[in-house]
Amino acid sequence: MGKITIVLDAMGGDNAPHEICKGALDACGTYEDLELVLAGDEEKVRACIEPAASGVRNRISVVHASETIAMDEQPANAVRRKRNSSLRLAMEMVRSGEAQGCISAGNTGAIVAGGVLVVGRLKGIDRPALGVTLPTIERPTFLLDVGATVRCRAESLYQFARMGNVYSKKIMGIGQPAVALLANGTEEIKGDETVAEARELLSEASLNFKGYVEGDDIVWGRADVVVCDGFMGNVILKFGEGLMYGARSIIREEMGNRLLSKVGVLFMIPMIKSLWARFNYEKYGGTPLLGVRGAIFKAHGRSKAPAIFGALSTARNFIIKGGVDQIREELGE
Amino acid sequence: MGKITIVLDAMGGDNAPHEICKGALDACGTYEDLELVLAGDEEKVRACIEPAASGVRNRISVVHASETIAMDEQPANAVRRKRNSSLRLAMEMVRSGEAQGCISAGNTGAIVAGGVLVVGRLKGIDRPALGVTLPTIERPTFLLDVGATVRCRAESLYQFARMGNVYSKKIMGIGQPAVALLANGTEEIKGDETVAEARELLSEASLNFKGYVEGDDIVWGRADVVVCDGFMGNVILKFGEGLMYGARSIIREEMGNRLLSKVGVLFMIPMIKSLWARFNYEKYGGTPLLGVRGAIFKAHGRSKAPAIFGALSTARNFIIKGGVDQIREELGE
Repeated sequence: MGKITIVLDAMGGDNAPHEICKGALDACGTYEDLELVLAGDEEKVRACIEPAASGVRNRISVVHASETIAMDEQPANAVRRKRNSSLRLAMEMVRSGEAQGCISAGNTGAIVAGGVLVVGRLKGIDRPALGVTLPTIERPTFLLDVGATVRCRAESLYQFARMGNVYSKKIMGIGQPAVALLANGTEEIKGDETVAEARELLSEASLNFKGYVEGDDIVWGRADVVVCDGFMGNVILKFGEGLMYGARSIIREEMGNRLLSKVGVLFMIPMIKSLWARFNYEKYGGTPLLGVRGAIFKAHGRSKAPAIFGALSTARNFIIKGGVDQIREELGE
Repeated sequence: MGKITIVLDAMGGDNAPHEICKGALDACGTYEDLELVLAGDEEKVRACIEPAASGVRNRISVVHASETIAMDEQPANAVRRKRNSSLRLAMEMVRSGEAQGCISAGNTGAIVAGGVLVVGRLKGIDRPALGVTLPTIERPTFLLDVGATVRCRAESLYQFARMGNVYSKKIMGIGQPAVALLANGTEEIKGDETVAEARELLSEASLNFKGYVEGDDIVWGRADVVVCDGFMGNVILKFGEGLMYGARSIIREEMGNRLLSKVGVLFMIPMIKSLWARFNYEKYGGTPLLGVRGAIFKAHGRSKAPAIFGALSTARNFIIKGGVDQIREELGE
């Protein structure tokens, strides 16, 4: 196995560039085959990586970017116009083959637009999909699309299902992934026209297709791959995230003045640690943008170093296992 | 205030008829203006209400239904064909005016079909909506549609928003309810075509319209009324429910052999009780089917007596406040 080159958008996300650089250094320390490029404000980025050991630092290079794309910019316009932005430069390196993959914690729409406009779609793919690995009660579930393609035709859902199947099988190592469409009930009469049409297409495909699953089936891990459009996927993901943070905030509030409850928590520390280890989303790393000609990964906007490390681990694994070619073989030609 | 007559589908739901009847008796004991009709298998229903005190029992009558509609039956067909089903008979009583409202914990699709085909839509309403009151961190949020109308045009979303506004203001007593559309981001460029069109329609309506909210905004209670199509609403509701049950199951599993954690829980009982009181969905009762000519409420399929009691309280409140007429005034003619 040769070296693996991944470029990071060092300016994307709430904690850029410091935490992005820190995550990059950590990953270089762990994976000796990793060569990283940091695209961003050269002075700031160099200051971040300065303190690192030379054995790590000499596998990191910096590409200066004079612009950044903000979180609220109109994505396609920003990618087209800001040719010197850290995100655009990172995507260009994937297109030219200088890097095999790219990670950004920046503007999601801009990552998708960059993937389509700069890196380019795979043949046979109409629209790309962002997939996320959700820890569930049984085993991780791969949910896509979570925001690349807002609404889509049945053909796109069909392609998402097949890409998800490849990802689950080849990258996550699930034997015969159970693939399902997300709907408002499990019976055949459920779903809207688009989903029903995708169901028909998938019934004839050579994969372990399970029909429809409902919202709670995601939680119980009743399918390995769950497919929906990006509108639905985005709402679900944010709702789930909101519930997690909400639960934490409410428990803290209720705990407030209750000394006994605080004592109770002390007894529960081993359990809380175990729960955290099981559901810590950071270990699941970034979310791949599937259907484009490179290993493009989005990290959460709030990512700190461990999440960037996680995204780099996932992207490296995707590259080692030839993720793009796997999808091309399944759907491309 | 005169008497209020509500008919219950005594055969609908997982715990019918026993828990339905028990909830009915409890409600009659609490509300002296309540007269209830139980539609169902007469022998079974009578056996359930036999033990009650006569002061309660003499405000309960029984209508014999020789058929029931199963949870997995095709809704519209079942309602059309099973003329002697408990649900159909209950709906007929609302249509004829013998009852002002109806509650069922049965097949959701059949309740919606019964509302439309038997009870009838209000003028000016294209499609009905099921609304649910969600406990959130700030204050309850009213989410609609959660499953009556799978996909809908912008006009329907617009009507849902206006019905939700009336419900929040007149029934829940919120001053100037903040009304929002659920989307994949808060910026104006988000949403699909339908949602964007509904946004335009609502911008010109005379209500406190806040534009788009995201999935996590539901949790934080950032709007009093959140509007989406029934496909999305159904998936979200079930996903949220799944997460709650999932969390409980995981905590139990992790607690399993940990004696210390179990001791910890003892210290936390007052907190857990307070949390439960705050988020116990049973006190929020049934979900109204808005847009039809009667107070039609759906109770959860798993409802036990307290949930039926809650649904009866909510339906009674809706009737006392003239819910149907309020919506008619706002949207009718």
